[in-house]
Amino acid sequence: MNRPLILVVNDDGISSKGIRTLIKIMNDFGDVVVVAPDKPQSAKGHAITIEDAIRCDRLTIYEGDQEEYACSGTPVDCVKLAINKILKRKPDLCVSGINHGSNSSINVIYSGTMSAAVEAALENIPAIGFSLLDYNKDADFTQSEPYIRIITKKVLDNRLKHRICLNVNIPKSIESKQLRGIKVCRQADANWIEEFEERIDPKGRIYYWLTGKFVNYDSGNDTDEWALTNHYISIVPITFDVTDYSVLSSVNKLLINE
Amino acid sequence: MNRPLILVVNDDGISSKGIRTLIKIMNDFGDVVVVAPDKPQSAKGHAITIEDAIRCDRLTIYEGDQEEYACSGTPVDCVKLAINKILKRKPDLCVSGINHGSNSSINVIYSGTMSAAVEAALENIPAIGFSLLDYNKDADFTQSEPYIRIITKKVLDNRLKHRICLNVNIPKSIESKQLRGIKVCRQADANWIEEFEERIDPKGRIYYWLTGKFVNYDSGNDTDEWALTNHYISIVPITFDVTDYSVLSSVNKLLINE
Repeated sequence: MNRPLILVVNDDGISSKGIRTLIKIMNDFGDVVVVAPDKPQSAKGHAITIEDAIRCDRLTIYEGDQEEYACSGTPVDCVKLAINKILKRKPDLCVSGINHGSNSSINVIYSGTMSAAVEAALENIPAIGFSLLDYNKDADFTQSEPYIRIITKKVLDNRLKHRICLNVNIPKSIESKQLRGIKVCRQADANWIEEFEERIDPKGRIYYWLTGKFVNYDSGNDTDEWALTNHYISIVPITFDVTDYSVLSSVNKLLINE
Repeated sequence: MNRPLILVVNDDGISSKGIRTLIKIMNDFGDVVVVAPDKPQSAKGHAITIEDAIRCDRLTIYEGDQEEYACSGTPVDCVKLAINKILKRKPDLCVSGINHGSNSSINVIYSGTMSAAVEAALENIPAIGFSLLDYNKDADFTQSEPYIRIITKKVLDNRLKHRICLNVNIPKSIESKQLRGIKVCRQADANWIEEFEERIDPKGRIYYWLTGKFVNYDSGNDTDEWALTNHYISIVPITFDVTDYSVLSSVNKLLINE
């Protein structure tokens, strides 16, 4: 019996409720190895640690069959270290999350959770990032669990020929609203309007806190934002080829052929 | 006479030779405001600072007409802070770099220099990231300068209807090899093979340094790697919509319609 080898990572840190839920689910699917940040690493994007050394220590486990390692680096460092130093073979799947908070639309490029999934996909490992639209550290993942099981099973059972990296976002549980199912979507054209909160320290110097509000400019009904607003789970397949093919010829004309 | 307002940022830090060169060039094109990291912030990707406060202090300038601000945050923080707190109006152009080292092919997703440019593009500001394929802190930017001027002038003169974000990489100066011009390209399918160097600290605990070597799997002659190898400057237009449209229908079939 060949059980799949599953790498679990996140960006909220190894002790967060989201990753504990994901580990419990993944133990039913295969042999689980967790390599996750030893502290919160949200919004770290695709950052890697090149100016400092990295620590990665095996933890004693009190519940479950998984192996666990806490890493001082970013979520992407965790994936690189797992593949190169910890796992005995290439994993069959990498799952990241469950993130506390949305990684829909433009949030995907800031997200450590999704960057970890992208890093695995770069190494030809099927990868799924899961996020719940609830920033609360005690968020309720109950409604998410059956959907995470369905998506995981389908990705494990069906090896697609191409690289696969899925950005899965799950609406917050609301008693009166049942989830209506899954939609495969494109990334909505949405963005943050920043508001830097200015404060004065005891020595009279200014410092700033980054805050902001999210604005969706996209009226399409094929986007992740549409799906989430309408109580669907959104799934956006993600690429790491960021060439803007739609403007290649106009940029060529602008810069060269004029 | 309306001089363009130009935001200059980088990831190597405000005192690096690359950004000093770029500031000098940009002073000939418009009113320049520099908001750059107060220390090296390479490979920070699209990371933003949400768990800590951010400092940003105006510097005294001894040479040139620019305004300068040193920021404690990431390259993307610098752009957000510049737009929201420092600049009096939306800039006409954001230039990032000149990076010491390549941001071609997959390096684009790790790069703080390119993430800063992407962040500006997200705000509908035309953006260009410049990188020289020389990691040396005393790198020679002489050969790059005329090309940076040509590209900057064309982007400032020709307002394209769509958002523009260019990833410009410049081959290292070699006396015997003149640059052959500019190529507009797609991102090559290349990747890093990591090698973590393992060391033991004085207390007997293991720690790791991330190293690796770059491998190009792409044999196309329309890629940035091809252009650079053949002594052309490569320009890849960059998107922040990371939806993988090429697999939308197959992923839909896998997850929903089976």
